[in-house]
Amino acid sequence: MTVQHVLHAVETLRGVAVRTPMLTSAALNEELGREVWVKAESQQLTGSFKLRGAYAAVAALDPATRGRGVICASSGNHATALALAARQFEAPAVVVVPEDLPVVKRRAIENHGARIVPYPRLTGRRDAVVHQLAYQHGLTIIPSANDERVIAGAGTVAWEMLQEVDGLTTLLAPVGGGGLAAGTALAASGHDPSLRVFGVEPSAADDTHRSLRVGRLTSISPPFTVADGLRHTEPARIPFEINQRLLADVLTVPEQAISEAMAHLFRHFGLVVEPSGAVAFAGLIHALDHLPDGPVGVIVSGGNVDWNTYKTLLDIAMARMEAPHHAAAVLY
Amino acid sequence: MTVQHVLHAVETLRGVAVRTPMLTSAALNEELGREVWVKAESQQLTGSFKLRGAYAAVAALDPATRGRGVICASSGNHATALALAARQFEAPAVVVVPEDLPVVKRRAIENHGARIVPYPRLTGRRDAVVHQLAYQHGLTIIPSANDERVIAGAGTVAWEMLQEVDGLTTLLAPVGGGGLAAGTALAASGHDPSLRVFGVEPSAADDTHRSLRVGRLTSISPPFTVADGLRHTEPARIPFEINQRLLADVLTVPEQAISEAMAHLFRHFGLVVEPSGAVAFAGLIHALDHLPDGPVGVIVSGGNVDWNTYKTLLDIAMARMEAPHHAAAVLY
Repeated sequence: MTVQHVLHAVETLRGVAVRTPMLTSAALNEELGREVWVKAESQQLTGSFKLRGAYAAVAALDPATRGRGVICASSGNHATALALAARQFEAPAVVVVPEDLPVVKRRAIENHGARIVPYPRLTGRRDAVVHQLAYQHGLTIIPSANDERVIAGAGTVAWEMLQEVDGLTTLLAPVGGGGLAAGTALAASGHDPSLRVFGVEPSAADDTHRSLRVGRLTSISPPFTVADGLRHTEPARIPFEINQRLLADVLTVPEQAISEAMAHLFRHFGLVVEPSGAVAFAGLIHALDHLPDGPVGVIVSGGNVDWNTYKTLLDIAMARMEAPHHAAAVLY
Repeated sequence: MTVQHVLHAVETLRGVAVRTPMLTSAALNEELGREVWVKAESQQLTGSFKLRGAYAAVAALDPATRGRGVICASSGNHATALALAARQFEAPAVVVVPEDLPVVKRRAIENHGARIVPYPRLTGRRDAVVHQLAYQHGLTIIPSANDERVIAGAGTVAWEMLQEVDGLTTLLAPVGGGGLAAGTALAASGHDPSLRVFGVEPSAADDTHRSLRVGRLTSISPPFTVADGLRHTEPARIPFEINQRLLADVLTVPEQAISEAMAHLFRHFGLVVEPSGAVAFAGLIHALDHLPDGPVGVIVSGGNVDWNTYKTLLDIAMARMEAPHHAAAVLY
């Protein structure tokens, strides 16, 4: 895959995916001693960047195949995205989700008319369920990361960032299945090969970090991280090969940095961000000294979080942090 | 004043004020049975629309006058805005604020290098303090609403909304001093005279509503409303005359609707909004049946709120509301 795949997805998504804002904050920049730009994919349709990949993949199917329907397994946001993408083509959608999916994500999927099939998280025969349903009903599987069109769609996030702000030296993307990081790296490589792209994972869910260290796909037991969107994912072959080739590194962050990132995003940008969506920002505050000099672009990948979870995490984080504020700016 | 003043401010603010996103949500639209667009001025520089008016006014001063400095009285957001606007011209700024100003707003003002002078809210000789300081130090007073350039700057919010979304029949703007409502009405009148613009006030701070009913400026004691940004304002002459001429009406909303509006904006748009900033949205949910048919544009005017206030209000509102979610979209 190359940046050409991303550029093709940019065309596919024109007028469909929304061009989310790039935000900066004078107060945050001063606090960190660094120019930081946040790409708010929490304000994408369906509340996460996942719409981009799901729509790009569904759009590429031939109409007869698409008409029989699509299916995916997902920790929530990809499922919502696939449900919306399918509905826009009037195609049926089935989504296989962990039974402990946050209510907020379950409702969003149902709102878009998809059929939900839960599976037990820890016994986890998720892929078997997906393949059986796909076979029975003639559905096409749209993976959440292990698909070139999904990766290309995800890459349009970084493509927009690089169009909108000059001089970024570093991009940070959260890593679950690795599709967003791979798409980001592809977009960056076509823009400026000296640009460094880092993936960021919770330390508790560092399967891509480990896989890169040993040079092959490595899985871990379902981890207990507050970043629920990264709990049920593991590195997939196609994005992993791209990430091996193009990522500067995958950083890992402690749980505490994730809730602190959510608090920073509340305070400086007025953004409600889900834990997984704040992981790349957590990488920024946790590993700032290890990043290359110059302006940093951070992908905030999703905002679907229920109030009780949000409140609990922000209470913890705010208690640890001081209380200054603010001066947010949207560029676009 | 006419729409020409707004168009002039659009030029002044080009490349300075950011073009904030217009957001819509399929789930919210379905819930309300109405197409709703939210203009997120909470993501404007300084976290509120006030930057637009303050900058337009400071830019219009002759350099010698400006160089001596500017002063204002403000409930917080106008002060922050004036501080930033002055700094961009390297002019000194002094702001006179109520002594119970939320910490989050005080810090933001200080971050921009302005000098803060507190006054006691209830004994309230605010204007006398401002005039004395202005006289002593040769400062120019930049009012938060009672100024043609400030009103024109505020009107650029609606001008952007009308550029970005076709077919809006109704606009809702919060009312404190009345400058934003007046600017909104001016912008709308130049776009389509059949467009209806409503101001919205907390019932507890309904001084403009009362003033319009009796046909002259009427003040009330400093009200106790959760919308702190609308506590210390009263209708001013210049915007009042515009609002008398051009507003369809000023709606009033109970306190409960304001926190519910904040919860809706959390849930459907991932936006952190301060109480005053949610007042127009509260008007939408409180008075939906009384609004003209067709798509509604709602100005979310600011997002500067500290975590404890936010948490308290959302807890109250969430306890009252059910818990579905979501599918936010940014248009720009």
